[in-house]
Amino acid sequence: MAQSPMYLNILMLPIQNLPFGIFSSTRNDTKRVGVALGDKVVDVAQLEALGYLDTLDFEPSDFKSEFLNAMMLRGKLAVRNLRNRIAELFEINNKTLQDNVEHFNLIVREAIECQLHLPIRVGDYTDFYSSEQHAFNVGCLFRDPDNALMPNWKHIPVGYHGRSSSIIVSGEPIHRPKGQKKPPTADVPVFGNCNLLDFELETAFVTFEGKPLGDSISTEEADEYIFGMALFNDWSARDIQGWEYVPLGPFLGKNFASCLAPWIVTLDALEPFRTAGPVQNPKVLPYLEYTGDKHIDINLNVLIQPENGTEVNVCNSNYKHMYWNMNQQLAHHTINGCNIKCGDLMGSGTISGPEEGMFGSMLEISWKGTKPFAMPDGTERKFIHDHDTVIMRGYAEKNGVRIGFGEVRTKVLPAK
Amino acid sequence: MAQSPMYLNILMLPIQNLPFGIFSSTRNDTKRVGVALGDKVVDVAQLEALGYLDTLDFEPSDFKSEFLNAMMLRGKLAVRNLRNRIAELFEINNKTLQDNVEHFNLIVREAIECQLHLPIRVGDYTDFYSSEQHAFNVGCLFRDPDNALMPNWKHIPVGYHGRSSSIIVSGEPIHRPKGQKKPPTADVPVFGNCNLLDFELETAFVTFEGKPLGDSISTEEADEYIFGMALFNDWSARDIQGWEYVPLGPFLGKNFASCLAPWIVTLDALEPFRTAGPVQNPKVLPYLEYTGDKHIDINLNVLIQPENGTEVNVCNSNYKHMYWNMNQQLAHHTINGCNIKCGDLMGSGTISGPEEGMFGSMLEISWKGTKPFAMPDGTERKFIHDHDTVIMRGYAEKNGVRIGFGEVRTKVLPAK
Repeated sequence: MAQSPMYLNILMLPIQNLPFGIFSSTRNDTKRVGVALGDKVVDVAQLEALGYLDTLDFEPSDFKSEFLNAMMLRGKLAVRNLRNRIAELFEINNKTLQDNVEHFNLIVREAIECQLHLPIRVGDYTDFYSSEQHAFNVGCLFRDPDNALMPNWKHIPVGYHGRSSSIIVSGEPIHRPKGQKKPPTADVPVFGNCNLLDFELETAFVTFEGKPLGDSISTEEADEYIFGMALFNDWSARDIQGWEYVPLGPFLGKNFASCLAPWIVTLDALEPFRTAGPVQNPKVLPYLEYTGDKHIDINLNVLIQPENGTEVNVCNSNYKHMYWNMNQQLAHHTINGCNIKCGDLMGSGTISGPEEGMFGSMLEISWKGTKPFAMPDGTERKFIHDHDTVIMRGYAEKNGVRIGFGEVRTKVLPAK
Repeated sequence: MAQSPMYLNILMLPIQNLPFGIFSSTRNDTKRVGVALGDKVVDVAQLEALGYLDTLDFEPSDFKSEFLNAMMLRGKLAVRNLRNRIAELFEINNKTLQDNVEHFNLIVREAIECQLHLPIRVGDYTDFYSSEQHAFNVGCLFRDPDNALMPNWKHIPVGYHGRSSSIIVSGEPIHRPKGQKKPPTADVPVFGNCNLLDFELETAFVTFEGKPLGDSISTEEADEYIFGMALFNDWSARDIQGWEYVPLGPFLGKNFASCLAPWIVTLDALEPFRTAGPVQNPKVLPYLEYTGDKHIDINLNVLIQPENGTEVNVCNSNYKHMYWNMNQQLAHHTINGCNIKCGDLMGSGTISGPEEGMFGSMLEISWKGTKPFAMPDGTERKFIHDHDTVIMRGYAEKNGVRIGFGEVRTKVLPAK
């Protein structure tokens, strides 16, 4: 299902940005690879067809494709060359394409006439749990504030497998899930609508094809296997999750839907925004050590828009607050020989900053419902209501250049 | 990677069996759909090419395919008609094909000249935990014998998401995984080889395309979404798993490899072996209720073959011992609207029978290492050694008809 074009209006993406996505347009409903630039979408399949990519190692079917996977299978260097070539073609002084009106009109679409689709055919989806503040908050809420972090948490970038089939693109609505839950006051479980529907503010990274089963990817090598990042809402049904998750982890409390932004921002575009991560104490095992700045400064926020209401900001966070970085996550994931494939998706886990106002889920914002969030319309939110739309936005900014992320927007419809 | 032909020798499958797989042969290394019959493999792509399937709703590419998924996308009825047509062609009195020497030689291969491949492109892989004896044993070993089952266990067919990318076919060896673990006597975790490498005796079922995201499949409807079953070894690294699994479940302790048999036995072939399941007390919630016999009587056993040694039987179990059946598993998995796709794989969880000798993992057989299993060669096994081969076999038998399952065989190589 496609995203409504109105949600593209916020895109004003500079030439340093050039995120990849899959789009179709009012003139051509075939899904194909696009790159966002300003308020336009560059049709990469047309660029190829008109000969502008002849020096690169791609086939037409890499771009006339329902997903980015075929293009990504060409590898990191090929995709980097492609992105550099697109930057070159749209560099302000390069008139080759820009003065060819016929070609330009075939290649460049107004974002407003484009529908955006799920960009990745997700193979395996893994979700990490790598924000210390989030893990601490959850530990306080469900266990013991004096021992909020589990003993393994500072030794392992804890993660678990999620469900790929229910990953949808921004703009698709979801229905409130139903399921089995056991209210604290009940003797036996009951069946019914989820009452504690929550978002989780996350980023996700998408991988290139990894090594064969049995081999590991080091923290040093990890960057070469990461295509890019996108905003990600890991929807959670807290009441279903709370009853089911012992001892094997979250299942139906998560797999009813997870929502991915339509644009994947390449790791190359994010290099200027690298920043140091926290000092990790206790010292991690050697396979988790890394050198250089591997965290990234990405401003993130979450808004709730009630039906017919205005957007209300409920969270300002930043990806730089993560305890574990992507390199460590990938090194850990493969240390036992687990193989990574082209198009795997790895969620960061909820990204909560160190102060109130920076928490990335309603569970934390409302402190498990004990501190309801006051909305300007006089209502309050402990969790997400029917007809609310949850919106996540993000950008990295430095030296006057702002790299934007496509937003994630999901409306919650009543249970079926 | 292909399975060595020798492992096919045990196949002596009657016409009621007709399991589906993907094979290539010494004469033709293209992967394609095959059906096992006796000690032969029927080349379904050739059957189609020679016109024997003209009345059915398939395309050549459904059978000239690296995986069964394309064929399965035609749906349960189409696959049933195909299987019935093959049974008709090879019925002893039907001479149409059997007397056409030229066609017969093109269509029927000796199993010994065939290589078998992973039959399914697995989308999402879910593993359940549905044997009461197994859950009880694990609860006794890791928690409290007086409260061995978790409070949710008899209310929910507990399950979790697994890793699809590392599912391999029988015959492929694995390397002992490495990872982070915390020995009971250690203050801090250490890195090293898994010392507690274990098998889990399971069956897995494979699904047809399900309903759209948001819709549920009832226990009544579930059979229509199940293509068939196969033997499955859910390899486990108990020391890695023990340190990592709180609070989000098993991850690297599982995802280094899971091993699937090459032949999928259709649910149609298993209908004669249906049997009643246990009385479920407490009563389950209405969405988990079912009518009729939904369990299946399948004899299962596990053997360990040391390097240059003979096979030693270590477990005799039966799929009928499961507390939760596949219909309940599928109804639970989709009750929140989670969507099932063509080619999803659902593991049963370790199938342990109610008595010693019927336990489906070394963890249980050796009672966490306290009761080593004595091997006839004078060695003992607490867990699996390097160079051991673990073999799982199974069959259903009634009224003189035996439905065989392709075996699962995996050799463990030393850590890389």
